[in-house]
Amino acid sequence: MNAFPPALFKGYLEYKKGKFSDERERYRQLAEDGQSPETLIIACCDSRAAPEIIFNSFPGEIFVIRNVANLVPPFKPDVDYHSTSAAIEFAVQSLKVKHIVVLGHGRCGGIKAALDPDVEPLSPGDFIGRWMDLLAPAAEAMASNQWMTGTERQRTLEHISIRHSLENLRTFPFIAAREREQNISLHGAWFDISGGDLWITEPETGDFFIPEL
Amino acid sequence: MNAFPPALFKGYLEYKKGKFSDERERYRQLAEDGQSPETLIIACCDSRAAPEIIFNSFPGEIFVIRNVANLVPPFKPDVDYHSTSAAIEFAVQSLKVKHIVVLGHGRCGGIKAALDPDVEPLSPGDFIGRWMDLLAPAAEAMASNQWMTGTERQRTLEHISIRHSLENLRTFPFIAAREREQNISLHGAWFDISGGDLWITEPETGDFFIPEL
Amino acid sequence: MNAFPPALFKGYLEYKKGKFSDERERYRQLAEDGQSPETLIIACCDSRAAPEIIFNSFPGEIFVIRNVANLVPPFKPDVDYHSTSAAIEFAVQSLKVKHIVVLGHGRCGGIKAALDPDVEPLSPGDFIGRWMDLLAPAAEAMASNQWMTGTERQRTLEHISIRHSLENLRTFPFIAAREREQNISLHGAWFDISGGDLWITEPETGDFFIPEL
Amino acid sequence: MNAFPPALFKGYLEYKKGKFSDERERYRQLAEDGQSPETLIIACCDSRAAPEIIFNSFPGEIFVIRNVANLVPPFKPDVDYHSTSAAIEFAVQSLKVKHIVVLGHGRCGGIKAALDPDVEPLSPGDFIGRWMDLLAPAAEAMASNQWMTGTERQRTLEHISIRHSLENLRTFPFIAAREREQNISLHGAWFDISGGDLWITEPETGDFFIPEL
Repeated sequence: MNAFPPALFKGYLEYKKGKFSDERERYRQLAEDGQSPETLIIACCDSRAAPEIIFNSFPGEIFVIRNVANLVPPFKPDVDYHSTSAAIEFAVQSLKVKHIVVLGHGRCGGIKAALDPDVEPLSPGDFIGRWMDLLAPAAEAMASNQWMTGTERQRTLEHISIRHSLENLRTFPFIAAREREQNISLHGAWFDISGGDLWITEPETGDFFIPEL
Repeated sequence: MNAFPPALFKGYLEYKKGKFSDERERYRQLAEDGQSPETLIIACCDSRAAPEIIFNSFPGEIFVIRNVANLVPPFKPDVDYHSTSAAIEFAVQSLKVKHIVVLGHGRCGGIKAALDPDVEPLSPGDFIGRWMDLLAPAAEAMASNQWMTGTERQRTLEHISIRHSLENLRTFPFIAAREREQNISLHGAWFDISGGDLWITEPETGDFFIPEL
Repeated sequence: MNAFPPALFKGYLEYKKGKFSDERERYRQLAEDGQSPETLIIACCDSRAAPEIIFNSFPGEIFVIRNVANLVPPFKPDVDYHSTSAAIEFAVQSLKVKHIVVLGHGRCGGIKAALDPDVEPLSPGDFIGRWMDLLAPAAEAMASNQWMTGTERQRTLEHISIRHSLENLRTFPFIAAREREQNISLHGAWFDISGGDLWITEPETGDFFIPEL
Repeated sequence: MNAFPPALFKGYLEYKKGKFSDERERYRQLAEDGQSPETLIIACCDSRAAPEIIFNSFPGEIFVIRNVANLVPPFKPDVDYHSTSAAIEFAVQSLKVKHIVVLGHGRCGGIKAALDPDVEPLSPGDFIGRWMDLLAPAAEAMASNQWMTGTERQRTLEHISIRHSLENLRTFPFIAAREREQNISLHGAWFDISGGDLWITEPETGDFFIPEL
């Protein structure tokens, strides 16, 4: 039990011999010059929705925050630790990314929990309960909609959540300012983990669609 | 500027045609059955240190939190949002992962900022300043050591940070309990983004070493 | 007990019959012409870190000072005996060596003693305590760093010590002058007695690295 | 000029591939268990008189001090740094060696300088002048003996010097005590760098002889 997970280490050895070998020079440059990713992706922790896999990324391409249900809290500067806000501040103000993509996905466990009237706190601290409260009004409205199916409520709240995160991004003064100056642009996307389709947010309406290729 | 980043979408199309195609059946299963990753990885947002790439992961294998400098705040149940704590609670109490790996890396921008006496807040809220304060005493001791080189201070604080995150994980009662019952084990690892080596933490001492292959 | 150590003498007989025999002519020349080694090596007395073995030296190649922890005291011309300074003066001014290498190593007993808060003087004179005081400020900073592991403190102080010796070499006016005129160059190296790797000091930063072969 | 001396590094690579490879397990043990050499050798820095080569030593076998003319200063506990005394204290009190061998050799440059009436200080500090003053009365008597040849004076003073070092060793209280208790024994030896013979000191008289084999 104490040994480093063997499957993980085996995967690392495959990577070292394969992909890392091919990218050896790129890694050296990235180490010397530092990273300059153009895109910040805010995604879910879910093991089926990793941005690097979905976007076939190369090292140095994307700066990635991952939390439960790819949420962005509203801007709130105070004396506490704010993990997601700190990472957003670093990406925008230090790395000066040009794009922010909020990437949601189907079958999200956090969204599922937010919709469940009978869900118990996972521990006395109920961290996940408080975290998902970021979606509270919309989640309650969904949960109480007896005419939609479970799948429709799930998918709709996933979409609402992505739009909600985009709005909260705009409560950060430095993001709002850069968006006005057209130095940054915000995008939403939703990945269907079952069929593999990627849906993009239409900027004006917030609707999700599959781009024509 | 408003268009979804073309490079990202192009990468998605390659993925859809390539890797997703190969894994189509696995994705279907994962969608139907839900995810059951055995490992939680807490990694940095850095574009050069993505766990899925380093560990050559397949979908469903790892549940991933990514924040700046792969920090874990100490257990603090209160009325605020705690992004990292919520994700940890979900991984341990709901997904019941068997392993937690704190994955740090070289040239970490957050660590660099913590060591810089002249660093200015990136925005009036100074989110990253407060976030990196999680390492404050150790960072000050490192920053004031005039006999070490910049690289030595950077690497040592990266190592200290990983050990610190492991200690803070143990302040979560449900993690301490599971560790005692041998239902979960904690690991530290550090990835050299320049040369590609993976260093693992020796459980007794906390020293980092490259495993003999 | 009084007999000359048998193992030593046996080793001498093997040498006389083997290596000395092969080098007979070289020894004769060296005796007639005198020695003209191009490199002064300042190394530790440690039985596991002999320069002639590590560098596979031939007779006449290296002039070697060995003291505890390969230290160089700062330049201090006064009326006392200065063993290391005298040997340095001889090597540089009389033999006119082109290179000085300060060779440190892992698991150094002198460094270990300097880091130990509970160490007792080995005898009332406490010679080793005063000798290791040459590293005092750096040793205290290391010893008081509670966030580093014992191994990390040990190795870091070994590295600091090598850089410190190089700096003290430069306090000798005749070395500083020769370095300016590019008649002598100074190098640091650290030998891992466990794994056999040799690390070299990068001249600009003082960082240690394993040269690519 | 600034590059690490190539000949040295080449020698290291030969050693790493050859002798170190053969002794790999021994080095690992020595690193884990620490060193326990049974013999301290006090030898000269001279490039032609390395103990490890002369005695065909294996790693961990001998603890070696090297200074100009293998001198031992008399016991003098005060507030100054004493390189040779510190190393002797460490070898005897910490490593508890069973034997001390003072190894002199022919054509010794330090002895030559001590015999030269016209020798100029090598630098304003004249470190080597003061160091060789440890032999002053004997050196003057030799230098002024007009009936001996240069070679006879050189060799005789080399022999006197070895005996002088052995006497000075006995001024260290902890050495005198251990010798009385028969826990340590002292030996002198002289290596003819021209012909390769090793002469040993006869304990009672101090005469040098070549042992019968």
